[in-house]
Amino acid sequence: TSSVVFLLQMGWGDLGAFGEPSKETPNLDQMAAEGMLFLDFYTASPLCSPSRAALLTGRLPVRNGFYTTNGHARNAYTPQDIVGGIPDSELLLPELLKKAGYTNKIIGKWHLGHRPQFHPLKHGFDEWFGSPNCHFGPYDSTERPNIPLYRDWEMVGRYYEDFKIDLKTGEANLTQLYLQEALDFISKQQASQQPFFLYWAIDATHAPVYASKQFLGTSQRGLYGDAVREIDDSVGKILKHLQQLGISENTFVFFTSDNGAALISAPKQGGSNGPFLCGKQTTFEGGMREPAIAWWPGHIPAGGVSHQLGSVMDLFSTSLSLAGLQPPSDRQIDGIDLLPVILQGKLIDRPIFYYRGNELMAVRAGLYKAHYWTWSNSWEEHGKGIDFCPGQSVAGVTTHTQEEHTYLPLLFHLGRDPGEKYPLRFASEEYQQAVGHISGLVQQHKATLVPGQPQLNVCDQAVMNWAPPGCEKLGKCLKAPESDPKKCSWPH
Amino acid sequence: TSSVVFLLQMGWGDLGAFGEPSKETPNLDQMAAEGMLFLDFYTASPLCSPSRAALLTGRLPVRNGFYTTNGHARNAYTPQDIVGGIPDSELLLPELLKKAGYTNKIIGKWHLGHRPQFHPLKHGFDEWFGSPNCHFGPYDSTERPNIPLYRDWEMVGRYYEDFKIDLKTGEANLTQLYLQEALDFISKQQASQQPFFLYWAIDATHAPVYASKQFLGTSQRGLYGDAVREIDDSVGKILKHLQQLGISENTFVFFTSDNGAALISAPKQGGSNGPFLCGKQTTFEGGMREPAIAWWPGHIPAGGVSHQLGSVMDLFSTSLSLAGLQPPSDRQIDGIDLLPVILQGKLIDRPIFYYRGNELMAVRAGLYKAHYWTWSNSWEEHGKGIDFCPGQSVAGVTTHTQEEHTYLPLLFHLGRDPGEKYPLRFASEEYQQAVGHISGLVQQHKATLVPGQPQLNVCDQAVMNWAPPGCEKLGKCLKAPESDPKKCSWPH
Repeated sequence: TSSVVFLLQMGWGDLGAFGEPSKETPNLDQMAAEGMLFLDFYTASPLCSPSRAALLTGRLPVRNGFYTTNGHARNAYTPQDIVGGIPDSELLLPELLKKAGYTNKIIGKWHLGHRPQFHPLKHGFDEWFGSPNCHFGPYDSTERPNIPLYRDWEMVGRYYEDFKIDLKTGEANLTQLYLQEALDFISKQQASQQPFFLYWAIDATHAPVYASKQFLGTSQRGLYGDAVREIDDSVGKILKHLQQLGISENTFVFFTSDNGAALISAPKQGGSNGPFLCGKQTTFEGGMREPAIAWWPGHIPAGGVSHQLGSVMDLFSTSLSLAGLQPPSDRQIDGIDLLPVILQGKLIDRPIFYYRGNELMAVRAGLYKAHYWTWSNSWEEHGKGIDFCPGQSVAGVTTHTQEEHTYLPLLFHLGRDPGEKYPLRFASEEYQQAVGHISGLVQQHKATLVPGQPQLNVCDQAVMNWAPPGCEKLGKCLKAPESDPKKCSWPH
Repeated sequence: TSSVVFLLQMGWGDLGAFGEPSKETPNLDQMAAEGMLFLDFYTASPLCSPSRAALLTGRLPVRNGFYTTNGHARNAYTPQDIVGGIPDSELLLPELLKKAGYTNKIIGKWHLGHRPQFHPLKHGFDEWFGSPNCHFGPYDSTERPNIPLYRDWEMVGRYYEDFKIDLKTGEANLTQLYLQEALDFISKQQASQQPFFLYWAIDATHAPVYASKQFLGTSQRGLYGDAVREIDDSVGKILKHLQQLGISENTFVFFTSDNGAALISAPKQGGSNGPFLCGKQTTFEGGMREPAIAWWPGHIPAGGVSHQLGSVMDLFSTSLSLAGLQPPSDRQIDGIDLLPVILQGKLIDRPIFYYRGNELMAVRAGLYKAHYWTWSNSWEEHGKGIDFCPGQSVAGVTTHTQEEHTYLPLLFHLGRDPGEKYPLRFASEEYQQAVGHISGLVQQHKATLVPGQPQLNVCDQAVMNWAPPGCEKLGKCLKAPESDPKKCSWPH
């Protein structure tokens, strides 16, 4: 059985099926109606790179190295001056799937390191069309090069130069390119009757948000909505393509997101986390609860709904299971195989760990969530207008100093209070019982945790995308400045 | 064509179809899947009595008299010491439907005045099972009588005495009684082949929230969720009953709410307004945007979605239209006939007016909403812990003093910013155009507005439910104290 994973940056509340009040995602809503909706699904970090590393390794970022120790409880990712990336010692899903004869393609943002040793084709992928970093820019090529797009081993151009993004109008046709890549890859695999893993990790809803001309201005929600509509349309076309080729019953498809909607970009470029608190960068529900849909006609009963606590890391274990493979036994894997959940409606008891950097901020077990640390961002950043919780302020919860609650964690019941607004009373029996249970899980987790070597500590202007492989053919090589390694700055 | 209106107090975000993260309303979700979802549907007031008066008269509370002038911009309702009620001069929907041979029944909370002249059977209803006021209590029968329940003209008992509500466990079987009433009424009407109007206005989700034993503890969301599940189950049974009797294609059914979820009652007794700001008592979206579903098998295409700006007052005009009747021509009717929207997918351009008392607080036209006044509640009330926007605070928007913005209204784009968090810049062209348009609508509205005589100004302990008709048969008459009329106190 082939696997397709759609990984976007969208908020839980951005889909019609999850209550977005403009209801502009008919294809995703239909995918949900034909498949299974996961309402309690999580990413592994409130930021993109660590989430993606977790998805592909099945392991928490604190294990696979996608975190920083430069500051306490800081989110870190892979900007183009990052020195680190995915360690060779990590086993990625496509590496493992190869053993079962899979062809693996990544379309879109890799984000697991851009230096040669981190190239996705060195980590199990057979094909790549996309970029190693976010599509920030444009840059001046002197202080900073523009981000390259790769086809397989070599770059084929750069954002803002060869692949236009008009920051003024928001126009860019990249999603259409990524869509075509997906359709072509699927056709090719179907023709050769080979199983495949397609990782469609596109970035139109990540600031700077963009959409193709035909979608610009079509949404009630502004540019962000235009981008969502284009993605929705693309997902619909990909699913239809699988059906038309007659392979939809042999293809497991999963749609989810790498972090909650970025509320700092709102309203023009920011999505919705529905009823949940705050957004990207935080360990409140809005930062890590994700929309999630599983689709596999003929196997998943239509219209299913699951309250299984799920994680992007489960896509690792589930895809292996679909390929008839066992997960590696020489290391801790945090993902679980969701097939019993999806096919038999089982519920597997497992906690969700909310990390920021190497700090365990919160833990969910059942409907209870205990916060051991709370922090949105610093007063200093907040004073500059950077707000991860705009319009939302819960006293003692969305704190602007890092508050430790190790001895008396803040406890919420996410059924009665999905918005994390009403901490339970410390003296209540309900509190004592739930915290007692969760504390046991934390002890167990911490006792066996072996943190990986942190990969996101060192930055160096010399490692930026000055001269990616293939640049000489395009006349697009730039001269790197002298190496000047220093600690990366992670303000939140 | 018969009409059934379900009127509850629920928040926009309380249904699975509207993104409630526990997704516990399978029957309402199916009703939406088989019918039409209204995503931009409003009540006529952020409080119950005025909304209900507006639904049944098709007119804004400021016209039909359901408002107060005791203070500026105050919400008022009909507690049991209210002197006023629905004026005889108002024409109610059931009165009009009688001309087309309808039998009309109200089940649940009337809330349009409890003194003899306001009795629902004097205003067009043929049958009643329910109460005139909210189910607050229990009272001591000395300072205040318990609220009576009526069957038709006479009381049949009182809450907490003959109809138990256990405030400790939340157990009460009232919803089951109301369900049985509905099923029996429908059966009787079907047997006699008479058209009917059934107004099912039950109150299990209004604090004090209650549910029947078989639903207690069954929801992830606590007692409020138990009540929602019981209502969902009841709605499902009523729809199924219509189908089994073979009259579903002759019965137009509408589900909506009289105000947003009461966030002051959260988390134990409070619902969800999804992505919207604040709740009941406010003119932010959370106070007045309502879940709404139209269902009429064989007429409404399944799975429809409408962005028509709709109002509970439209149920007046739509129900008349279904009965082949014209709305009264001697007075201003604010409701519109939604049939072209529902049956032909048309969009009718009309504004939504958000009133608090007799003050026009805000106006929506298209996707723009202009606030002319902002207020959540007073600092004094807020200091006592009464918070209509818990965990939500938008500077300059959720104000605790009454702020006038008549000359430069606060403008929001509800597509890009459903949460009313980011006012548009006054200097922008978008602001100028939208405010120019809306100001024209306001001028027109105010120029032709004839306010009704305010009904909710005077309260008197002597008018409480001491000796409702029928009390003598039950030995439940109480002695009224001396009349002592005074201004009602409306703190917010």
